[in-house]
Amino acid sequence: MDMRLKKQAEFIIEIDKIKSVFRQTLLINGKRYENDAEHSWHISVMAVLLSEYAGRGGDKGIDILKALKMVLLHDIVEIDAGDTYCYDRAAAADKAAREGKAAARIFGLLPEDQKAEFLNLWEEFETGNTPESDFAVALDRLQPLINNYMTEGRSWKLHGVKAHEVRSRISRIRAASEALWEYAVMIVDESVKLGYLAD
Amino acid sequence: MDMRLKKQAEFIIEIDKIKSVFRQTLLINGKRYENDAEHSWHISVMAVLLSEYAGRGGDKGIDILKALKMVLLHDIVEIDAGDTYCYDRAAAADKAAREGKAAARIFGLLPEDQKAEFLNLWEEFETGNTPESDFAVALDRLQPLINNYMTEGRSWKLHGVKAHEVRSRISRIRAASEALWEYAVMIVDESVKLGYLAD
Repeated sequence: MDMRLKKQAEFIIEIDKIKSVFRQTLLINGKRYENDAEHSWHISVMAVLLSEYAGRGGDKGIDILKALKMVLLHDIVEIDAGDTYCYDRAAAADKAAREGKAAARIFGLLPEDQKAEFLNLWEEFETGNTPESDFAVALDRLQPLINNYMTEGRSWKLHGVKAHEVRSRISRIRAASEALWEYAVMIVDESVKLGYLAD
Repeated sequence: MDMRLKKQAEFIIEIDKIKSVFRQTLLINGKRYENDAEHSWHISVMAVLLSEYAGRGGDKGIDILKALKMVLLHDIVEIDAGDTYCYDRAAAADKAAREGKAAARIFGLLPEDQKAEFLNLWEEFETGNTPESDFAVALDRLQPLINNYMTEGRSWKLHGVKAHEVRSRISRIRAASEALWEYAVMIVDESVKLGYLAD
């Protein structure tokens, strides 16, 4: 078997593990927590569906394929690093170090050119502020907000999350899209009004 | 709230249900069956990773973004129609009718232009033979093959699936890529040799 395809096959097998990395967001039916593979699929469909809202100041020149690659790949590091709950400040302290090590190992399974491409996409998602990374990050913050709202804030209540923390977290959406940010603000306001989220 | 975004939001909420549609393929760790969201994510990453093998006769002019949209959306109809096991001939009889009805309802939640786009992509995946649909279908057949091999054919054995049925199913891969087809054939041969799959 060709060595290049062999490495790609090993990566395909390795990333199956992401289906067992669970997040703090519930499915909308409230029956269980969702995992990283499900979350990544959901925001990938959202990237296709909501692409018209991407791009700054009406500039629609965003590379949707690049943004899609980012959302598909962004959580793969959690196979080693685990899911870091976004409102857990203690865990946030060493998140970058844990995830950097994971990225090196997991993307390191790939042929050199793809290892470099995937590492760059992941780093741009994590630390960049390009139109593509802004859009990808916005979707990553919008989807759990929708699921939390639809499950009446059960996960927020469980973790004692306050409205100001959620508002701070969704503020990043504004860089990607005014319309999506307004939608997110509306969900937070409604969540507070309905008692899903403590003010 | 803007009517267009409202419809898009309803679709985003609706498709969360795909996370509860389970397939006959096991996760590679063998602990449970995988669901449609996980499967769709997995083959979407494969579409990015293996795009170099797509395109007929060395023609690399395949539209990867279009193929990606197809793999992301292809199983959404199963929210209503359920997963039809690919080796179940009785269920195959009314599969097209069940799925067509589902597509009309679910994609019908969207604004007209996106409803038309998504329906077209789904129909092309189901019945087309464009380079994009060939590639998307190839990935849809390759991923469960890998998972079945890695779980020592447990699901094949459970359903009494024979090697000639798997060979027939993977034959479609050849239209998309000679290299991926050879890889699939190698997995089937190895599965028969190791007793994972009955000859």
